[in-house]
Amino acid sequence: MPPLLFRQKERLQCASLSTRSPHPFSFHCFAPFYSVVQAIMPPKPLDYESLNENVKKVAYAVRGELYLRASELQKEGKKIIFTNVGNPHALGQKPLTFPRQVVALCQAPFLLEDPNVALLFPADAIARAKNYLSLTSGGLGAYSDSRGLPGIRKEIAEFINRRDGYPSDPELIFLTDGASKGVMQMLNSIIRNDKDGILVPVPQYPLYSATISLYGGSLVPYYLEEEENWGLDLDNVKKSVAAARSNGITSSIEQLQCIISACYILIRAMVIINPGNPTGQCLSEANLKEILLFCYRENLVLLADEVYQQNIYQDERPFISARKILLDMGPPISKEVQLVSFHTVSKGYWGECGQRGGYFEMTNLSPQTVDEIYKVASISLSPNVPGQIFLGLMVNPPKPGDISYLKYTAESKAVLDSLRRRAHIMTDGFNSCKNVVCNFTEGAMYSFPQIRLPPKAIEAAKKAGKAPDVFYCLKLLEATGISTVPGSGFGQKDGVFHLRTTILPAEEDMPAIMASFKKFNDEFMEQYENYRGFSRI
Amino acid sequence: MPPLLFRQKERLQCASLSTRSPHPFSFHCFAPFYSVVQAIMPPKPLDYESLNENVKKVAYAVRGELYLRASELQKEGKKIIFTNVGNPHALGQKPLTFPRQVVALCQAPFLLEDPNVALLFPADAIARAKNYLSLTSGGLGAYSDSRGLPGIRKEIAEFINRRDGYPSDPELIFLTDGASKGVMQMLNSIIRNDKDGILVPVPQYPLYSATISLYGGSLVPYYLEEEENWGLDLDNVKKSVAAARSNGITSSIEQLQCIISACYILIRAMVIINPGNPTGQCLSEANLKEILLFCYRENLVLLADEVYQQNIYQDERPFISARKILLDMGPPISKEVQLVSFHTVSKGYWGECGQRGGYFEMTNLSPQTVDEIYKVASISLSPNVPGQIFLGLMVNPPKPGDISYLKYTAESKAVLDSLRRRAHIMTDGFNSCKNVVCNFTEGAMYSFPQIRLPPKAIEAAKKAGKAPDVFYCLKLLEATGISTVPGSGFGQKDGVFHLRTTILPAEEDMPAIMASFKKFNDEFMEQYENYRGFSRI
Repeated sequence: MPPLLFRQKERLQCASLSTRSPHPFSFHCFAPFYSVVQAIMPPKPLDYESLNENVKKVAYAVRGELYLRASELQKEGKKIIFTNVGNPHALGQKPLTFPRQVVALCQAPFLLEDPNVALLFPADAIARAKNYLSLTSGGLGAYSDSRGLPGIRKEIAEFINRRDGYPSDPELIFLTDGASKGVMQMLNSIIRNDKDGILVPVPQYPLYSATISLYGGSLVPYYLEEEENWGLDLDNVKKSVAAARSNGITSSIEQLQCIISACYILIRAMVIINPGNPTGQCLSEANLKEILLFCYRENLVLLADEVYQQNIYQDERPFISARKILLDMGPPISKEVQLVSFHTVSKGYWGECGQRGGYFEMTNLSPQTVDEIYKVASISLSPNVPGQIFLGLMVNPPKPGDISYLKYTAESKAVLDSLRRRAHIMTDGFNSCKNVVCNFTEGAMYSFPQIRLPPKAIEAAKKAGKAPDVFYCLKLLEATGISTVPGSGFGQKDGVFHLRTTILPAEEDMPAIMASFKKFNDEFMEQYENYRGFSRI
Repeated sequence: MPPLLFRQKERLQCASLSTRSPHPFSFHCFAPFYSVVQAIMPPKPLDYESLNENVKKVAYAVRGELYLRASELQKEGKKIIFTNVGNPHALGQKPLTFPRQVVALCQAPFLLEDPNVALLFPADAIARAKNYLSLTSGGLGAYSDSRGLPGIRKEIAEFINRRDGYPSDPELIFLTDGASKGVMQMLNSIIRNDKDGILVPVPQYPLYSATISLYGGSLVPYYLEEEENWGLDLDNVKKSVAAARSNGITSSIEQLQCIISACYILIRAMVIINPGNPTGQCLSEANLKEILLFCYRENLVLLADEVYQQNIYQDERPFISARKILLDMGPPISKEVQLVSFHTVSKGYWGECGQRGGYFEMTNLSPQTVDEIYKVASISLSPNVPGQIFLGLMVNPPKPGDISYLKYTAESKAVLDSLRRRAHIMTDGFNSCKNVVCNFTEGAMYSFPQIRLPPKAIEAAKKAGKAPDVFYCLKLLEATGISTVPGSGFGQKDGVFHLRTTILPAEEDMPAIMASFKKFNDEFMEQYENYRGFSRI
């Protein structure tokens, strides 16, 4: 019996207990009307059929079909290498000692009065913990201001000033439970309806597509150039804008109708991810200038996702913040373009994903808008306070001469050097595989190889009811335990297929993982290039 | 020069640098068209004028005008007693030792290998920390599953089973960064447009009104009965529903028009806050039964905000969960009514607000809906992991025989006993004041006295451009430093005025605070009862 009928039957049994109120959306429980009632029985408010449609439209590939299948296999006892999420500690990266010491002391402030504390903690960690506790009103257990602790926002402003060479205002820095929450809040403020378009790079991190769906806006994709090491070609952006605006309309009558019915997309914001996720590219100064000029001309907010700013693996392509270039450009652009920049403790050599510490900084937003954003942040009271302390420590680490300086520096350098080596091992490994080409990971923590699937593999995928890249990634998972994300989750050009993997597996495991990948891939290619209608994998 | 003109002028200066693209929403920068351009110059996407209207509609009183003024006064050096937010640690409550020890060890897992660790930490805290770390995949620095760590969801399910006497399924429990985030996610799933109504008690905690505005739904208020110690009278609820549905319509022609234009409100959910915030009442078993039957008949989801379930100050009125009553009622109701219950580490005798640990449990939701909610939770990857550990410790505290049991029990009992005494001191204090009447706080952590303002005070408020209760609370703040929230932030009947204060100031300070309140209030009343057109306060 289908659930709706079952439910209705039970409700009818209850008719003696209650008569339903006669209003336009309810109905009377009389048995003779059984079939009528069946037809009009509304779903319950949290039944799938009656959920907010925007919720249903959300697609989130990073924890999608592949992740769920990998979790199942893990439950069944298979060894899974999770490379689907940039989650370094889950793949064995150890936390940096100093920040953990400071936060542990902040969590247990009674230790600061214990005469044995110095046996377990260095003096600079103790001093730093005391200082952070003095910045709170009630320690880690008290809500902070909804924007975050003023003392930590000040530390962040000083860091930005050192990084960019331009002073930053702590009042324009808001702390969040991870950078994602900040991106979501900002998009919620920008998107008013499905005519509001957000320019998003493709391939893109699905946070953007998912959030734009959730808040009912329109994603306007612009394609990154794989042949140019995933560079951002502004001509592509302009083409995307023109296409979104014309909405596929060619005749002037159609155009008139479109104006009347307001079917044009109004593009309101542009997202850049720098260094790129999943593509790993670092934007050059010239590129950033073009982008900012474009935002100025087109009246767009620039959302600069800069969470990988510490993850740089090529000295000739350093990270440069959008804010620095904006301010370098001088007025009117530097005073006009609205910019929101995001950062986090989850990436870099920290990888403190589970702590959920992030911030955003706003440039050229009016005080009235900042007040509105403050008000909305207030609804959930405050970001988690331990995550705020981590942010403070990230932007203001131990200095030369501090007791913990050498250890901190050695630990963070070791993480970054190893990531750099792994970026090379992975790129080289992919490029040694049949029908696989892969750009070098300049930054961030992902590899995004293109998988050139033979027509017969695409056919086999179609028969299995899967997208070709999903088909490939599922086979890879089943054969090797390597859990990746199919490129379609990030967007890709028609007929071109990728997968994303992180470069995070332990360095010592990397050769074996790449060998296992190569074995699977080359056999797969072999099989489908010589496909005779049955599957051998 | 107004900012819009200023901005335009600067843009024109830049006309030589860039020609704006010719699309329906841009324009050409030619000086002859200056005045035309002025008229059509669109605001920037994050200018106040062009923000998402729902963001602007949000009102959030708890950190509203009073809080901002109090923060200003504090900056100027005035001693402020913040009673506007239920933030116990900010008012001197000390954290419970055992959970902080466990979380500190989880933050600094290297301590577990230090031979000196036993000098600072008891053995059961060490064992517990090791156990929690074994439940994570990578410690506190790794993202957990987006629903939270499976091991902790299991601990919560066991707690719910012990509390209600019915087994609970960990797969239906999702952890969140504080309970507020869970409420927001659930309302985002329910609300589709402004025709979707949510029944909310008035006075209510402004999380609900703010979130309903943010997601573009309609708040349908139902009034709690102040004369019945803020009890929930179901007749009031029914009246509210009828009023919302008829939308003020009386004639049958109007009714027909309304059906055609779909202007009826479809009520989709009912919120209860039990124990009440700001009103402090505990719902009786009979009351909960009525509510659930009503939700069943009217096809409503019940959102049960039970974050104060440990804050109970009257033995004859214990906390009973909505879930227990639902399951007691048996089928069909127990299998039909969709219920989502919320809990947190921020309240109770924990008061760990800054850690942002919350959960919600879903009853009678289909697996497909649970999957959708999981998907949306995935967008921001995972709730903060330390907050999850606190939740585990809250629902599974030390047991008799454990080393830390006696200390833990003594500490938590001391907090609760003191809150109970403070609830009495405060209620009695308010009731000793002129024109103030106050119900006893049965539960939660607030006092919500009614302030009977003389007509002349209301007149003076009008002249000052303030709501009467805001006027009173501002005067109170300036005179005494006591920062409260005006009743209008929570909703109240027309012409009736309240304020909300927490019962959280330190017990030893309480007599002085109440004396200071009484002095201010009685002088205020005296003044405005004998008002002669000038202000003496």
